[in-house]
Amino acid sequence: MSTADLGFARVDLDREHRQGLPEVVYGPGKQPGQIVAIVRTLLAHNTGPVLVTRVERETASAVLAAVPGGGYAPGARLLVWRPAETTDFAVAVAAAGTSDGPVAEEAAEVAAAIGLGVRTVTDVGVAGLHRLLAETERLREADAVIVVAGMEGALASAVGGLVACPVIAVPTSTGYGAGLEGVTALLAMHASCAAGITVVNIDSGFGAAMAAFRLAHVLRRPR
Amino acid sequence: MSTADLGFARVDLDREHRQGLPEVVYGPGKQPGQIVAIVRTLLAHNTGPVLVTRVERETASAVLAAVPGGGYAPGARLLVWRPAETTDFAVAVAAAGTSDGPVAEEAAEVAAAIGLGVRTVTDVGVAGLHRLLAETERLREADAVIVVAGMEGALASAVGGLVACPVIAVPTSTGYGAGLEGVTALLAMHASCAAGITVVNIDSGFGAAMAAFRLAHVLRRPR
Amino acid sequence: MSTADLGFARVDLDREHRQGLPEVVYGPGKQPGQIVAIVRTLLAHNTGPVLVTRVERETASAVLAAVPGGGYAPGARLLVWRPAETTDFAVAVAAAGTSDGPVAEEAAEVAAAIGLGVRTVTDVGVAGLHRLLAETERLREADAVIVVAGMEGALASAVGGLVACPVIAVPTSTGYGAGLEGVTALLAMHASCAAGITVVNIDSGFGAAMAAFRLAHVLRRPR
Amino acid sequence: MSTADLGFARVDLDREHRQGLPEVVYGPGKQPGQIVAIVRTLLAHNTGPVLVTRVERETASAVLAAVPGGGYAPGARLLVWRPAETTDFAVAVAAAGTSDGPVAEEAAEVAAAIGLGVRTVTDVGVAGLHRLLAETERLREADAVIVVAGMEGALASAVGGLVACPVIAVPTSTGYGAGLEGVTALLAMHASCAAGITVVNIDSGFGAAMAAFRLAHVLRRPR
Amino acid sequence: MSTADLGFARVDLDREHRQGLPEVVYGPGKQPGQIVAIVRTLLAHNTGPVLVTRVERETASAVLAAVPGGGYAPGARLLVWRPAETTDFAVAVAAAGTSDGPVAEEAAEVAAAIGLGVRTVTDVGVAGLHRLLAETERLREADAVIVVAGMEGALASAVGGLVACPVIAVPTSTGYGAGLEGVTALLAMHASCAAGITVVNIDSGFGAAMAAFRLAHVLRRPR
Amino acid sequence: MSTADLGFARVDLDREHRQGLPEVVYGPGKQPGQIVAIVRTLLAHNTGPVLVTRVERETASAVLAAVPGGGYAPGARLLVWRPAETTDFAVAVAAAGTSDGPVAEEAAEVAAAIGLGVRTVTDVGVAGLHRLLAETERLREADAVIVVAGMEGALASAVGGLVACPVIAVPTSTGYGAGLEGVTALLAMHASCAAGITVVNIDSGFGAAMAAFRLAHVLRRPR
Amino acid sequence: MSTADLGFARVDLDREHRQGLPEVVYGPGKQPGQIVAIVRTLLAHNTGPVLVTRVERETASAVLAAVPGGGYAPGARLLVWRPAETTDFAVAVAAAGTSDGPVAEEAAEVAAAIGLGVRTVTDVGVAGLHRLLAETERLREADAVIVVAGMEGALASAVGGLVACPVIAVPTSTGYGAGLEGVTALLAMHASCAAGITVVNIDSGFGAAMAAFRLAHVLRRPR
Amino acid sequence: MSTADLGFARVDLDREHRQGLPEVVYGPGKQPGQIVAIVRTLLAHNTGPVLVTRVERETASAVLAAVPGGGYAPGARLLVWRPAETTDFAVAVAAAGTSDGPVAEEAAEVAAAIGLGVRTVTDVGVAGLHRLLAETERLREADAVIVVAGMEGALASAVGGLVACPVIAVPTSTGYGAGLEGVTALLAMHASCAAGITVVNIDSGFGAAMAAFRLAHVLRRPR
Repeated sequence: MSTADLGFARVDLDREHRQGLPEVVYGPGKQPGQIVAIVRTLLAHNTGPVLVTRVERETASAVLAAVPGGGYAPGARLLVWRPAETTDFAVAVAAAGTSDGPVAEEAAEVAAAIGLGVRTVTDVGVAGLHRLLAETERLREADAVIVVAGMEGALASAVGGLVACPVIAVPTSTGYGAGLEGVTALLAMHASCAAGITVVNIDSGFGAAMAAFRLAHVLRRPR
Repeated sequence: MSTADLGFARVDLDREHRQGLPEVVYGPGKQPGQIVAIVRTLLAHNTGPVLVTRVERETASAVLAAVPGGGYAPGARLLVWRPAETTDFAVAVAAAGTSDGPVAEEAAEVAAAIGLGVRTVTDVGVAGLHRLLAETERLREADAVIVVAGMEGALASAVGGLVACPVIAVPTSTGYGAGLEGVTALLAMHASCAAGITVVNIDSGFGAAMAAFRLAHVLRRPR
Repeated sequence: MSTADLGFARVDLDREHRQGLPEVVYGPGKQPGQIVAIVRTLLAHNTGPVLVTRVERETASAVLAAVPGGGYAPGARLLVWRPAETTDFAVAVAAAGTSDGPVAEEAAEVAAAIGLGVRTVTDVGVAGLHRLLAETERLREADAVIVVAGMEGALASAVGGLVACPVIAVPTSTGYGAGLEGVTALLAMHASCAAGITVVNIDSGFGAAMAAFRLAHVLRRPR
Repeated sequence: MSTADLGFARVDLDREHRQGLPEVVYGPGKQPGQIVAIVRTLLAHNTGPVLVTRVERETASAVLAAVPGGGYAPGARLLVWRPAETTDFAVAVAAAGTSDGPVAEEAAEVAAAIGLGVRTVTDVGVAGLHRLLAETERLREADAVIVVAGMEGALASAVGGLVACPVIAVPTSTGYGAGLEGVTALLAMHASCAAGITVVNIDSGFGAAMAAFRLAHVLRRPR
Repeated sequence: MSTADLGFARVDLDREHRQGLPEVVYGPGKQPGQIVAIVRTLLAHNTGPVLVTRVERETASAVLAAVPGGGYAPGARLLVWRPAETTDFAVAVAAAGTSDGPVAEEAAEVAAAIGLGVRTVTDVGVAGLHRLLAETERLREADAVIVVAGMEGALASAVGGLVACPVIAVPTSTGYGAGLEGVTALLAMHASCAAGITVVNIDSGFGAAMAAFRLAHVLRRPR
Repeated sequence: MSTADLGFARVDLDREHRQGLPEVVYGPGKQPGQIVAIVRTLLAHNTGPVLVTRVERETASAVLAAVPGGGYAPGARLLVWRPAETTDFAVAVAAAGTSDGPVAEEAAEVAAAIGLGVRTVTDVGVAGLHRLLAETERLREADAVIVVAGMEGALASAVGGLVACPVIAVPTSTGYGAGLEGVTALLAMHASCAAGITVVNIDSGFGAAMAAFRLAHVLRRPR
Repeated sequence: MSTADLGFARVDLDREHRQGLPEVVYGPGKQPGQIVAIVRTLLAHNTGPVLVTRVERETASAVLAAVPGGGYAPGARLLVWRPAETTDFAVAVAAAGTSDGPVAEEAAEVAAAIGLGVRTVTDVGVAGLHRLLAETERLREADAVIVVAGMEGALASAVGGLVACPVIAVPTSTGYGAGLEGVTALLAMHASCAAGITVVNIDSGFGAAMAAFRLAHVLRRPR
Repeated sequence: MSTADLGFARVDLDREHRQGLPEVVYGPGKQPGQIVAIVRTLLAHNTGPVLVTRVERETASAVLAAVPGGGYAPGARLLVWRPAETTDFAVAVAAAGTSDGPVAEEAAEVAAAIGLGVRTVTDVGVAGLHRLLAETERLREADAVIVVAGMEGALASAVGGLVACPVIAVPTSTGYGAGLEGVTALLAMHASCAAGITVVNIDSGFGAAMAAFRLAHVLRRPR
């Protein structure tokens, strides 16, 4: 049977088989006890890494006390049990500014936990292009670049023009006023003049890492 | 020298070297004569396929008369010279409804022109899930799935949950009223409950094909 | 006389006669004393169930102390006096994810209090279609399905295509970023490719239950 | 087998069995020849009414010439073959103003074609309440009321408070300026102070009729 | 001289002469000491009523302690010194629901303080039309009707069709979801099918009272 | 009986009695024959002026041929029969720019047709304040000022501060880009720092004239 | 006297004295005869350049026939009489793509007509940064840079970080989908991470040139 | 080397050389220790003023304790070390209302810290035009005017018509309802009828001061 019905949740036990990774738990709105039950179910019926995203520190402590063996990354607000071994698929996480840090950290921590090699490049916003240009070679070595940028999100276009590999843009809600809580960056990244950029939801470092995992998954296929 | 200055345009001659594909010409707003000049420049200084997107039939005829050897796909509104040989990277283009056809066709024609193997799956919207489920295996065989859907864009979430490979969602401007010319589908695809889906601009079959090309590019890297 | 003027409120005493159910009190912005006065008036001049929605626990306790005989459902934030007997009209409440729980609970508790038979089906979001498909028969047995879903709201389209009975979609404000506090789900449900779906306000489990009551009302008419 | 693959379309042949009505064809974006092929397929593999919506007169003539036996309602832009026999389920279509006429007509013609009894009440906008009040009894006799209103959509709230049966509100794109092409009416109908109103997409007379069909479907169930 | 420069503010001393009423002070963002200084200046250089709007209770107490002789209406959050004598210009304030109370109260208290005769009619939302119809004559006796309504704001259209006098509609931010914090009501009131309705800013009971004052002002002109 | 049912329309014959003016016909979406029928009904059952708004020239000619005795103002797109005698209620129509002319003309022509005295003041936008200041006295003599302005709509605020009488602001859809087809002017006029300004729908010269009529109506009441 | 009242327009004759440049005529919505009258008035009462913007070719011909001595730039849709002598204030107009050409041309032609030295740099979008970097020195030599860019508008941020002089960003309505007709570029330019960038209205090459004129004006002041 | 990599930030040391001013630190989201490290780096490698914006008082105290010699302006939430000497470039900061004070203060304090001469003119909103007109000469003496206004932002248009120098408009988020947190003012300022106005982000007093600095920079160039 492919689901476990916990009453308040229906855990998708088949996902690891279907997509190469157990279901990832979205933390907000769940009681610590609910998270504990889901995590235990996932650990028991899967073999891969188990993650819970967007968990505040207090909840994390309660859950870890009940389900030992996990780790908590406070900047990324991420709980991880059984992290995967690192593969040779290399992801570069490029963040435009210091305030994009938490989202970049979520992308990096999730990516690492699911087995991707991660390199982070911070504070390379386009207002000082030489900072970005100095990192171009490092970005080009990656198999995918996750670009994390708020405000006007211009970094995605600039990176998109510099590298040949997939670019996954994450708009962030940093900034104020006309940034419209990340909506401006999201729209701008879609309207980008650089061809072939793709975009995930606002502040979704998690989504970007999962998109990169899909790439890595295909790369591992026998040909 | 890496650019050719035609006065009205500055052609990026270095792009083929940098990203594996010559610059693609965006047709709207350009005179036939301007397109001719750019295409000739690209053909002369690059070796790969040369494409012009969103070209109406009349303009296409004028351009083809001046620059022989190209082909025109009217459904996709695409001009192509020197199409690339098809590689073993397989893209499935899944369209939710018949009215999403032109965007799906642009995705498929561009993908084919730049060397990707393309399989199209039409009319598999979620209002009749058995149509989608019957195609699941074909979608799973692909290296990437381009999901083309307007209205509420739910097909992207459903496909995202069925396959393990990268999913590139293209919202379309089909539908009316609350569809808001594709904005609703774009937002919905971003808010999708399926993890790791990425999204490109509204009606941008071109952008989706280019995103798939980036994947194929990485796959070809020596490891 | 059909209204009772309490100064701060004009209670519609005729509504039970007109629509089969006493006026339901909307809690927010009302003082406990005001709620007490309205509830007493409704209990005195009507014979059916009396409900107050969106009441926080502290207010609920104060009101229940002043007007004994009622019950409080904290998850649904609902106060009920004189719940109706359950009829044979069966409503299925299908929720896409765990975080849609409170809205689903409001729908279920209100529906039960006004006499509808309720069955809840949780965590059947389209990212794992087999979960939904496994519940199809249970959904088809219902006389109406209330679909509660945030993020992109795709569950409404999928259910709409599976069942023949009325589908009442409730967009929720769960999720973040491009979900726009439920506006994206609301628009997406309207743009749905499944024909004949209807939609109520964001997070309005109450509205969905009342819409189902209207259906049940017609069903009871002599023919 | 439950679908017929016409290449450009995948016709859902199972829908009549699943939902009591053959798939309805959405006309825009389809060539006359495509419509002909789909209609022939539906007529051949189903027994119920076959409809094509939003068809302009010229296309309608071409299709009817190829597939005789159908009828065309120009105001509703609707093509119908094999209309269903009228049942005793009575729908009232109430339109706020003369300019809401085409949408009301689509609702009425579709409803009639799929077997519902239809009564139309026009020009009962709330700016002259006595017009609405004079029709109250006729509205109360119906099993469902479809309210068609543009501008501010207030008619839905007023009707919602007058009748006990299901109210399906259709916002229309009539009006100008602050009406925002129907978006204002859609939002206003959702925010309505009348409980249990449901809403369909802007200008979707078709959607409202289909929602009414779902009600009638449940009513016919053996109990 | 027509202004008093207090450094942090430039008090418009000429306004009473120009518009028949001293400048009204907008409370938010001002320190109690600043309010005190402005109020003293206005009292010293004008002869009419002096008002401060949107003042929380604590600030009000501090200001009243420093400038005796004033009164505070907590529901309306209004400070008043030297209220005007009531004239024979009659304003009816009609509120759709109990939760619109604070805005209605601001409208009523400001109107009273600047000399208008005020009658309040509460809880006459269109979901129970008989409540409104029972008050029609009282509304018709007024020289102007201020309609205060949130959610879908339909009360403005209904009143607009019932009375011949000026109707000033105040959208409120009550409600949730599709009400969009009052924006839906504002747009709906503008799109109203009732001719000659005017609208003021969301939650601006103050603005509506001032608009009524302008009417009264013209009425007092010698003819 | 207070309505005349023409099948396609329900003419409100009671309105002249209720509001002092026969129902005004909204032209768009009506066939010439329908307008003729409504106008004839209104002329036969009322005694006051009969107006049809937003009528293009060709339709106007057809209607006038069938119902002689009327006049057509092409700039205002207005048809009028039996214009009212001019009263001593003076309306000033102030337009910000030349391109606001058609809306200002509609306001002026409607106002004149329903008996208001009209004076038009054109091209007094705030970019050249001396133009407005030179007209201040003329504006102050009016009983109401209709301010017609597109772009940023700042004229409403400026006039609101200069005159004591009612100010009815009409946002127009002139301008481009950030003007958002009049939405920016509408919002800006609501957010105006000048107290007591009221606003009508975008481009609704008609609505502004009707609002002024309501003022005049009250002024004529016996006191 | 500082204005000339032409009936349909009130020409601001004082503007040349006040701001150093005669009033510029906005073409749309004006009849050729109206433009002729205004231009003649401006030529007669001022000494500087007289411009009419956004004039289509046919209108331009009619006006030039009536008022000889002017010139018409069709790309910029600009009419000019008495262009100013070129000063030493140097403006660089940098356009991101070929389709931004018409707006860039308006900026350049207006700037030249009012006496600024203009240098145009085309097709330097950030998707190919080397094109921009190759022009950095030319941009740095300018006294002000006008950046014309649609889509995501990222060029403004990049230029803002490269030069020290004033940057005036002009969002354009080029692109499609998420570009939202230029609104995305406008918002993105405001949210830019480059400090001190200023923005003008969508497609307003004219506005940018006028902003540059204000700079030049200050530069000419005696110190 | 032109950047200093602090791990969490990449400080742009070249900016002083490139743009005449060290990088300004954006405070929100940075820990006090991070600010201290960045400030020390900037002080060590540059010679000009070092600023940190949007710093709350507590953070400011912690940073100042660690890096002595700086000053804190609490109204502007600004930290400054080594303020520049005042030049003869004169900026006038004109604020529409008292509640725009904090933004105006940020503009003024930043401008002063980077060497501009500053004069502040408060409370000159257009609802009392004589207040603005009385200050016209002072505004005309400035080399640039920063206009700070929320609500409808009309002050920008009025000032734009009065002065010949550059006008930098700062929309503020003051006001409520239709002001949409400053978005209305931003749009209105862009749609302004006064030519050549430029706009910066909502509440960005900092951005306006930096834009003025760019002007001053050009003025200092040798000619």
